[in-house]
Amino acid sequence: MSDKILLGHGSGGTMTRKLIENLIVKTLGNPTLNKLTDAATLNLPSGRLAMTTDSFVVTPPVFPGGDIGKLAVYGTINDLVMVGTKPFYLSLAFILEEGIELELFRRIVDSIAEAAENVGVEIVTGDTKVVEKGKGDQIYINTTGIGIIPDGIEMSPERIQVGDKVILSGTMGDHGITILACRKGLEMKTDLKSDCAPLHRLVNAMLDVEPKIRVMRDPTRGGVASVLNEIAEQAGVEIKVEESRVPILPQVQGMCDLLGLDPFHVANEGKLIAVVPAESAEEVLSAMRALPEGKDAAIIGEVVAKTEYPEVFVETEIGTTRILEMLAGDQLPRIC
Amino acid sequence: MSDKILLGHGSGGTMTRKLIENLIVKTLGNPTLNKLTDAATLNLPSGRLAMTTDSFVVTPPVFPGGDIGKLAVYGTINDLVMVGTKPFYLSLAFILEEGIELELFRRIVDSIAEAAENVGVEIVTGDTKVVEKGKGDQIYINTTGIGIIPDGIEMSPERIQVGDKVILSGTMGDHGITILACRKGLEMKTDLKSDCAPLHRLVNAMLDVEPKIRVMRDPTRGGVASVLNEIAEQAGVEIKVEESRVPILPQVQGMCDLLGLDPFHVANEGKLIAVVPAESAEEVLSAMRALPEGKDAAIIGEVVAKTEYPEVFVETEIGTTRILEMLAGDQLPRIC
Repeated sequence: MSDKILLGHGSGGTMTRKLIENLIVKTLGNPTLNKLTDAATLNLPSGRLAMTTDSFVVTPPVFPGGDIGKLAVYGTINDLVMVGTKPFYLSLAFILEEGIELELFRRIVDSIAEAAENVGVEIVTGDTKVVEKGKGDQIYINTTGIGIIPDGIEMSPERIQVGDKVILSGTMGDHGITILACRKGLEMKTDLKSDCAPLHRLVNAMLDVEPKIRVMRDPTRGGVASVLNEIAEQAGVEIKVEESRVPILPQVQGMCDLLGLDPFHVANEGKLIAVVPAESAEEVLSAMRALPEGKDAAIIGEVVAKTEYPEVFVETEIGTTRILEMLAGDQLPRIC
Repeated sequence: MSDKILLGHGSGGTMTRKLIENLIVKTLGNPTLNKLTDAATLNLPSGRLAMTTDSFVVTPPVFPGGDIGKLAVYGTINDLVMVGTKPFYLSLAFILEEGIELELFRRIVDSIAEAAENVGVEIVTGDTKVVEKGKGDQIYINTTGIGIIPDGIEMSPERIQVGDKVILSGTMGDHGITILACRKGLEMKTDLKSDCAPLHRLVNAMLDVEPKIRVMRDPTRGGVASVLNEIAEQAGVEIKVEESRVPILPQVQGMCDLLGLDPFHVANEGKLIAVVPAESAEEVLSAMRALPEGKDAAIIGEVVAKTEYPEVFVETEIGTTRILEMLAGDQLPRIC
């Protein structure tokens, strides 16, 4: 096999076949995928089916704390678990740029295998395309996931009530600032790494304590600010955030100050925001803090009013108030 | 709204939101998609679930007989129906290149809406990423589809028996040669167009006549030759094709002769190959010919032996025999 990806690897002929058999299936194989049929036949328990899709175009494809493969698996898993789904199956589609090192591709596929194993999902169907040099950027991945939502779980912004607490599961902005530092060649000066992680275990622990969690979202592109604004808008409420309670690493805050970025707009890849009934918020928080992925969780705010003019505002540490807007324009492209 | 796609349209902030609400949801909307949750909640009848994924990178994105949007919907539908699935839901993920005209994007989304409506599937979840100019090529699309395989349908190459007939549903190579002509600026000199079409109706008609069809495949990348070789290998058989019986348009044959291409390696996007029990082959063929998408269907060959050395060979019109190999290397990149 060549040590680089060639256009022929996307031809649908013998080269494609060899790449798929010798590398992809060998690493990710299972009885369903191994059949290499046009569509995979699956078994699922009965229940409500959930489906989500994401394409990943992050640059660089390998960064401190993760790579595009891990990100693709966990990102899609996280979208499923945000609506309470138990994930079962993933599809996996590559768009490779001609000329990339086979070694890089192999590393990403290994990382995908490890991430899928870690979450307990199977890759059941896939696709590999190759585009000419200069028509892509090394590797783009689409993962689409399906799973089952257990009975009794029914999250929806409409259930949000005044007094509900807003919980953030950990420090804000780690992924975005890591990628930024990495691109600017600053990665040697900090031990910062991406928070890229799956949230299934955390979500299970939370729903065990309080099945009536109103809504959960993972603040990826657009950051915490964009997710809170989406929730406020969909629920028709005003949300207050207390800045002093928002967990953030000093390196992340420092980089944001230096670069004039608002950390509320910076992407996360292993964090969630949950709106939880006030009476069970402390108990949910304790369950979260008992897990490594929730050890820095905090109640960062609450729902203060129903309103026709949904809004998110921050009470700053010096006692002033500012409106927290959705990210406008683009802060940092290709974060995921 | 700007008349071009900007990086901000992929930021996850207000620009992303406006693009999704004002263009994508307005065109493709349905109660499930409109919720814009991280994962869509779906209803499916009971039965075996099937899943397939494909990324589309065809260039140019608009070509005679179709465009990348139509191709993405029909391509994924066709992969589902090849295993007898009734398609229900699609996910849709875009990778857009910064700077492309919003008008082109709108046209593609309209085309997706029309194709989905035509097949009776819903787009239930999606994703939009934007990459910098020069890091993509206008528009790449991933569609992942799920559906249900009715009881009693069980296609698999292992069921293939000696004597089974091989049917091709229509003329070979139309899509590949159209794209090639289009890229070389030859499109004005011919009325050739892509065969890009959904195959669900044809498959239903065939399974109504013969539920025990052994296997069906759509000969896209790699062409008829690659699909026949895959089938031969998976079934452990020798397949004979009679060249004189293979339907092909004179323009396609002419272009292939001119360019030194083997039409058996050229991609199709609205054709299928089926291996059918000998006793019902004529009846299946009649049912196919009764539909516009199967009007040129023909029995092109048969399974001649079980073997440890699977092989496909062609009896040429002049009475000689040649081995039909899978496509090696790449004939024409980015055909789909």
